[in-house]
Amino acid sequence: MDKVMNGVDREALFATVEAVKADAEVAQFEFRLANKWVTGGENRSRIDDYFGARQEMRHAQAFELVNDEPPVLLSTDKGPNPVEYVLHALAGCLTTSLVYHAAARGIEVRGVATRFEGDLDLQGFLGIRDDVRRGFQSIRVVFDIDADADRATKDELIAMAEAHSPVFDIVSNGVPVVCRHGEPYMLQAAE
Amino acid sequence: MDKVMNGVDREALFATVEAVKADAEVAQFEFRLANKWVTGGENRSRIDDYFGARQEMRHAQAFELVNDEPPVLLSTDKGPNPVEYVLHALAGCLTTSLVYHAAARGIEVRGVATRFEGDLDLQGFLGIRDDVRRGFQSIRVVFDIDADADRATKDELIAMAEAHSPVFDIVSNGVPVVCRHGEPYMLQAAE
Repeated sequence: MDKVMNGVDREALFATVEAVKADAEVAQFEFRLANKWVTGGENRSRIDDYFGARQEMRHAQAFELVNDEPPVLLSTDKGPNPVEYVLHALAGCLTTSLVYHAAARGIEVRGVATRFEGDLDLQGFLGIRDDVRRGFQSIRVVFDIDADADRATKDELIAMAEAHSPVFDIVSNGVPVVCRHGEPYMLQAAE
Repeated sequence: MDKVMNGVDREALFATVEAVKADAEVAQFEFRLANKWVTGGENRSRIDDYFGARQEMRHAQAFELVNDEPPVLLSTDKGPNPVEYVLHALAGCLTTSLVYHAAARGIEVRGVATRFEGDLDLQGFLGIRDDVRRGFQSIRVVFDIDADADRATKDELIAMAEAHSPVFDIVSNGVPVVCRHGEPYMLQAAE
């Protein structure tokens, strides 16, 4: 058995599965983010710590991400806009899910390229029509998988990605989001 | 009337609303993204062109975004992971929706800081338990709004953000996502 396949350490992957089977608490993660508005459509997020595998964890470095809107959407185009970040999250998660689960099954993958398109009707955001949804009406994904596998196996890989990807689940099925006002300790933490 | 409020050109905003009311086609946007797997949990997206306001558009620059996973999730931590990007997209969209709709209503906002937390049970992604969902089980958002406004008005601002934000709609309610294999022209376009 190859120890590493598709860049994934399979021994570590199987060890993780065993650790979670022995203790479901190991599988409980909390991801976190702090965001600050700059001006207009520009705002910035900071991603640093998270909780997982029964402990406080920290990324190798703190990441800063920039949201903005292009001039046609009344801002200064300093970064992708939020709906484009949704496509990026979905792309990353489907690809990672495909590659990890292929590694677990012993299917070697040489390349994965994807294209994403999302349709948005701005009448929703602008509040012009209440019967037009605010978010994407649909998302289309095209996969190109380079592997020594027939079409049926590639279809299976895509189905495996859909079946396990957290962001595919979030974007397809929705998640309860609860918004509230903050207390002072939260404000400090957001600095 | 202030022409610019919260960094938003209100005249341009009202002109956009009128243009869309006169011709709904102006409001039809298609956002796009190409992603390539690198290795393990690392992959990169390119965001460049989109369609909107009846024409092909292009960002001021092409944006590249990096997805990765930390070592505890078996990769090299070169970037935030896909579920963290979901929080970033949601943060950006709620904040922008709040600030734009406040500007439209003539409510001046001096600052918006937010904190996001999302709960994920890895038993889903790992396929250990099929009764555990793959995505976030819940997302908590804490707002700190700096404005000359009482608590009721700030509550209204948050409700206005929830009511109009495309990503809040996507993440709360879900969107149909259709995945398929690509044709050669798509593969070239993804280069």
